[in-house]
Amino acid sequence: YYSTNRPIGVFGAPFNKGQPRPGVKYAPEALRNVNLIKNLSLMGHEVIDHGDLKFEAVPNDTAIYNIQTPRTIGKAAKQISDKVEEILRCGQTVVTLGGDHSMSVATIHGHAKVENDLAIIWIDAHPDINTPLTSASGNIHGMPLSFLTKELQPYVPKLPGFEWLKPCISVKDIAFIGVRDIDKAERYIIDKYNITTFTMRDIDKLGMECVLERTIEAINPTLNKKIHMSFDIDSLDPAFAPSTGTPVPYGLSLREGMFLVEEIALTNKVTGIDLVEINPDLGSQRDQFTTISAAAEVLYAFFGKRTKTQLPSDYVLPKP
Amino acid sequence: YYSTNRPIGVFGAPFNKGQPRPGVKYAPEALRNVNLIKNLSLMGHEVIDHGDLKFEAVPNDTAIYNIQTPRTIGKAAKQISDKVEEILRCGQTVVTLGGDHSMSVATIHGHAKVENDLAIIWIDAHPDINTPLTSASGNIHGMPLSFLTKELQPYVPKLPGFEWLKPCISVKDIAFIGVRDIDKAERYIIDKYNITTFTMRDIDKLGMECVLERTIEAINPTLNKKIHMSFDIDSLDPAFAPSTGTPVPYGLSLREGMFLVEEIALTNKVTGIDLVEINPDLGSQRDQFTTISAAAEVLYAFFGKRTKTQLPSDYVLPKP
Amino acid sequence: YYSTNRPIGVFGAPFNKGQPRPGVKYAPEALRNVNLIKNLSLMGHEVIDHGDLKFEAVPNDTAIYNIQTPRTIGKAAKQISDKVEEILRCGQTVVTLGGDHSMSVATIHGHAKVENDLAIIWIDAHPDINTPLTSASGNIHGMPLSFLTKELQPYVPKLPGFEWLKPCISVKDIAFIGVRDIDKAERYIIDKYNITTFTMRDIDKLGMECVLERTIEAINPTLNKKIHMSFDIDSLDPAFAPSTGTPVPYGLSLREGMFLVEEIALTNKVTGIDLVEINPDLGSQRDQFTTISAAAEVLYAFFGKRTKTQLPSDYVLPKP
Ligand SMILES: [Mn+2]
Ligand SMILES: [Mn+2]
Ligand SMILES: [Mn+2]
Ligand SMILES: [Mn+2]
Ligand SMILES: [Mn+2]
Ligand SMILES: [Mn+2]
Repeated sequence: YYSTNRPIGVFGAPFNKGQPRPGVKYAPEALRNVNLIKNLSLMGHEVIDHGDLKFEAVPNDTAIYNIQTPRTIGKAAKQISDKVEEILRCGQTVVTLGGDHSMSVATIHGHAKVENDLAIIWIDAHPDINTPLTSASGNIHGMPLSFLTKELQPYVPKLPGFEWLKPCISVKDIAFIGVRDIDKAERYIIDKYNITTFTMRDIDKLGMECVLERTIEAINPTLNKKIHMSFDIDSLDPAFAPSTGTPVPYGLSLREGMFLVEEIALTNKVTGIDLVEINPDLGSQRDQFTTISAAAEVLYAFFGKRTKTQLPSDYVLPKP
Repeated sequence: YYSTNRPIGVFGAPFNKGQPRPGVKYAPEALRNVNLIKNLSLMGHEVIDHGDLKFEAVPNDTAIYNIQTPRTIGKAAKQISDKVEEILRCGQTVVTLGGDHSMSVATIHGHAKVENDLAIIWIDAHPDINTPLTSASGNIHGMPLSFLTKELQPYVPKLPGFEWLKPCISVKDIAFIGVRDIDKAERYIIDKYNITTFTMRDIDKLGMECVLERTIEAINPTLNKKIHMSFDIDSLDPAFAPSTGTPVPYGLSLREGMFLVEEIALTNKVTGIDLVEINPDLGSQRDQFTTISAAAEVLYAFFGKRTKTQLPSDYVLPKP
Repeated sequence: YYSTNRPIGVFGAPFNKGQPRPGVKYAPEALRNVNLIKNLSLMGHEVIDHGDLKFEAVPNDTAIYNIQTPRTIGKAAKQISDKVEEILRCGQTVVTLGGDHSMSVATIHGHAKVENDLAIIWIDAHPDINTPLTSASGNIHGMPLSFLTKELQPYVPKLPGFEWLKPCISVKDIAFIGVRDIDKAERYIIDKYNITTFTMRDIDKLGMECVLERTIEAINPTLNKKIHMSFDIDSLDPAFAPSTGTPVPYGLSLREGMFLVEEIALTNKVTGIDLVEINPDLGSQRDQFTTISAAAEVLYAFFGKRTKTQLPSDYVLPKP
């Protein structure tokens, strides 16, 4: 489990312009409403709540490559990147509550400014590595890794609003876990650059424990790098996380998701976490509750809920 | 995965008289509506759509042994058997979209006419091996294997409408996977003839990979036989396939179902597939969507969705 | 599977005062309505139905330690304990259909009067070992094991209505399986007394078969003790048992629950079973059906549904 002495710095990035469903911006509030911050504290961690960022639309933000609001997205991403950098410079492990997955352009960028050798574990039904030229939808939440990856830059046009962004990671530092809906260009990129990828079939075949061992062996074998763990809630099966914009069947069980992040936590190398694509507007009330609970449990699991004794050392069992 | 050069020949058998719920006849249409044919093509296969059969009621079709319309069922089965034979003779792997499971009398019969040494993998909550004399319901979808099996003929009365049917398989060539609702006579037959059977407990105990290894070892150890894979959607847990006529709890997860058919595909011996008992009339809209998606995913998995690179060799990643 | 010659003695304990939701008292009726008794008989067992107990409120039953009706609960528990003892003295394996989990104070007490060396397998999302002084809710269904455990008596005040109760088990004889919602005092007790505990993470890590082996190794290595198996339906995931008062996410699948009790049955040492916390009043009709079915299937599994040939030895397959 997570056992470093680093405090946990949490902030909300209620950003939704990376895809068309506005409800994803309500996730930070929904997670706070189930006492996420307090529950992390009760588990014995020092937790600093940095509040939620506020984003503004950039005027005259004309579309390009079918991306509707590039300057607005770029500006928000800059804010998020700066916030991540700021929290990390305080010596805290940063937890960013999305928002859609486009914000990971920013969290990884900010993370990489502080930790210059970074491994990325991307837990998602989708690899999110389309370029603006290959995306069918123009939704940036399907592209963040193409913006960030050095090797892909010849294929990625510069977007207005993203002038500040420097590609900062390498294909060899990325691992995908749980992917099962892979676009043609993404497949091509994964194959061409041999990006470490564990699909649901790999998990069915190997089991989660083996998948994680191979992941670490592939992207961080000596554990000399810090790890950025980007958790898209749609990695979970729709039965456990129905309230998300692009659900895909045959996903991770909640228990697999929890076990995976627990095993990742055991590396003691994670300094940045994204929790994204929870959309409290979608589905029935029960769906919403199920999804928000699942998201919270994944984070609790990472921080030791199932593994750590949570007792103060001076606990006394009362006598009559 | 499925890697032979055989084209895939698909047809619909919207047949529902083997059980009392008419909605099962809408499954071929529902599967076409989620672009089953196109999606198989996009995976790089040659797919031939042979359309849907049309069935007619035989007049004055009086009941016998509590079977309501034996002549109508027999006539439809003859049509299906002929169609399967025809498609196989074109060198295609035949996929029959049911319809209820009574149609497998016909698909296996047609398959056996072309491939005279055939192994049957029957993936189902039920073994469907009652005889007309032991069935409590008189529903033929619970009897197809008794009609087909040579050893059982002393126990199976000849039905009007089925004069064309020749028993063509042996008890030693059948394997049941996923069964969990077994009638008394079925239990007796399985025990007496020692039919290869893996119940849900066996799957819990051994795991799916081991179950499939033992299945092949039991019924097709040298892989000299072609395989007929009959997939009843009620093999899946009701959580993944609620819209079916006779759901049974504690079934396969969708992932187990997909993994199973993927492993079967790896034999490269399957030349006939049934996908049956999807009833798009039952349950809520979400239930129906879940069930139809699950059925489609099982078929996609067989044909390599999770395992095969689906890229044209001349794919080019666009540059700005 | 369960293969002793002992008859099965079933009775209902429709008791709900150990927690605030009255519907839990309808569970024995709901289980009878799905033909629980008859189905157990059809599996080849001798089943004696001892009916349902009736409970009465004790007048002037004032609250103590936030427990609302201690005398009423104590009186009902005495009735249940006596009934369990009576059924065991007839040489039957006793199955108690709850009711809430407070009744296990009584079933274990009655069981221990007949079998003086008893191991307890407690399958539950909760360890139910709070004391009246540590419980936040005052609900006795969260306390039964503290009342029964010798080592804890210095911490457990005597309650009016429970004068008859003698602590009869030891911390070293208890094993928890499936726990995932553990209160502070419970955590302290488990740690201090080193109570055998397998959380959901342990199950994820080790698998169910290994967990059960270690359980037996820890609490009954030579199988010299009889076993009391207390099955709280909330051990199952809410997807499989939604209709229960205190559901907790990331629970056992129905198949894991069934497999677990099957493996426990193989010891041939179980002489007492509790099936508790089914609340047929909660959730939708489908939720209720799912929950009651799951509870019944767990019991059927214990008694051999998935493992045992259920045929009379004189079975004859009819010929035409
Ligand atoms: Mn994503
Ligand atoms: Mn995704
Ligand atoms: Mn069937
Ligand atoms: Mn079936
Ligand atoms: Mn309990
Ligand atoms: Mn409980």
